[in-house]
Amino acid sequence: MTNSRKTTSPNMPPLGRLLLIPNTLDFGCIDPNAAETSDLREVLPMGALNAAARLQHWVCENAKTTRAFLKRVDALVPLAVPLQALDIQVLPRPNKGGEKTANKTHKKPSDKPAPDPDADINALLAPALAGHDIGLMSEAGMPGVADPGAALVLAAHRLGVVVVPISGPSSLLLALAASGLNGQSFAFVGYLPVDAIQRGDRIRELDQISRRTRQTQLVIETPYRNAALCSGLLQHLHADTWLSVSCGLTLPQGWSRTLRVAQWRQQGLTLPDNIPAVFSWLAA
Amino acid sequence: MTNSRKTTSPNMPPLGRLLLIPNTLDFGCIDPNAAETSDLREVLPMGALNAAARLQHWVCENAKTTRAFLKRVDALVPLAVPLQALDIQVLPRPNKGGEKTANKTHKKPSDKPAPDPDADINALLAPALAGHDIGLMSEAGMPGVADPGAALVLAAHRLGVVVVPISGPSSLLLALAASGLNGQSFAFVGYLPVDAIQRGDRIRELDQISRRTRQTQLVIETPYRNAALCSGLLQHLHADTWLSVSCGLTLPQGWSRTLRVAQWRQQGLTLPDNIPAVFSWLAA
Repeated sequence: MTNSRKTTSPNMPPLGRLLLIPNTLDFGCIDPNAAETSDLREVLPMGALNAAARLQHWVCENAKTTRAFLKRVDALVPLAVPLQALDIQVLPRPNKGGEKTANKTHKKPSDKPAPDPDADINALLAPALAGHDIGLMSEAGMPGVADPGAALVLAAHRLGVVVVPISGPSSLLLALAASGLNGQSFAFVGYLPVDAIQRGDRIRELDQISRRTRQTQLVIETPYRNAALCSGLLQHLHADTWLSVSCGLTLPQGWSRTLRVAQWRQQGLTLPDNIPAVFSWLAA
Repeated sequence: MTNSRKTTSPNMPPLGRLLLIPNTLDFGCIDPNAAETSDLREVLPMGALNAAARLQHWVCENAKTTRAFLKRVDALVPLAVPLQALDIQVLPRPNKGGEKTANKTHKKPSDKPAPDPDADINALLAPALAGHDIGLMSEAGMPGVADPGAALVLAAHRLGVVVVPISGPSSLLLALAASGLNGQSFAFVGYLPVDAIQRGDRIRELDQISRRTRQTQLVIETPYRNAALCSGLLQHLHADTWLSVSCGLTLPQGWSRTLRVAQWRQQGLTLPDNIPAVFSWLAA
């Protein structure tokens, strides 16, 4: 994490860097303006807070949550530039019925969406090409891991912009460590199909992969589908498979529990429908 | 992470918990006694430092590095119990020509290794069964992820001991985020075979898996084999595959770079033989 800047040629201005700033894992679980909001220092290192406080240019998944985060940072490490004066851009939404253009959130959205997503992504890196560091942030955890941001990071590499990841919480890694399952070989496979039959097929397939390769399988789900996923896992995983559930990690009410599927079937598995959870399993 | 303790029955004493304490990523790269040793707060949140400072019972991968870590903690958050008075136990070494018994490192090693590894592991949890929290720590990053510790965590779940993972740096997650490769689907497959022919076969197999499933593949290697691994990756991955190399993340000299294999072949790929690296790739 050097502060030195890369120079593409002696005649070019030094490039800024793309800093990957971790967020907390309490997105959607707390009121960021509430007095009892937990101290960011409990889950984020000072390296992340100091870097965030210094940045003037941001690219994020959601401008509102980024501003809420920076307000919490400001209470601990004063921002170098006032919140209102920050340049906060939003990542284009991939494939989900949306605009693919980046909008300056403090200006009117452009009414001419650009046809080339690569051009949009590259445009987000303009401050770095002009010599300014950019912060990339998602709504929770590490940007680009089970979250948007990877396309921007790859674009940075393509353009020779140095990428600096900054340590912070990751629900996947915390859940894996807390599971007690195989941490020498594991796969995160994202979301399972929503359709119950397809989901059941996929669960059985991943159970077989785990049995054949001794690889821990990790999945996540949007919280309001937790119940459907739990039901599918208990129905379709082998009775001897170890199933680990981590719910609300780093939150006061967070917990992790690993049992064989047969034990889960006996004692039941009910999760809140508004707290993020990570599910992992290892076939015996 | 609540401070409430689980009670197995109204007549049982409350159990202690197993806290997974993250370590820094500078193992083997710094002299922990050197004056210029970086401030732990740069990479570890206060939640980790406060938890570490409070614990009296430890299970670790290496007692010496755990003591060095706790000395650094003590300089920031005074330890509740003096370093010399801590109970520090060492995890049994799996399969590597070693003792499978846990040794009290501040006492003489037992000369009667127990025959049952499960009994050894359960014995390490005795303080939790007696009501005391235990810290689990590896030499770098999160215990149990690409590091020993998972067996102890699973034993804790078996015995009803609550497991609490605490946020900290993970070289795998930082490298994945910094790669710009697919963070919605990825697999960590550990170490590749040492034999050059077997390693080449495995690299080609993992390249094909990545092409078929769009899954980022991550591997690590002991630093002194970095050169052999780089050579194997450049030789056996497809020219169009994106290959990301992250070296010494969180260290002052750390860097991440993602290029197509054809580009790496042109510009060369040389790594230091004493700094940990993470390699990841995604077939185009």
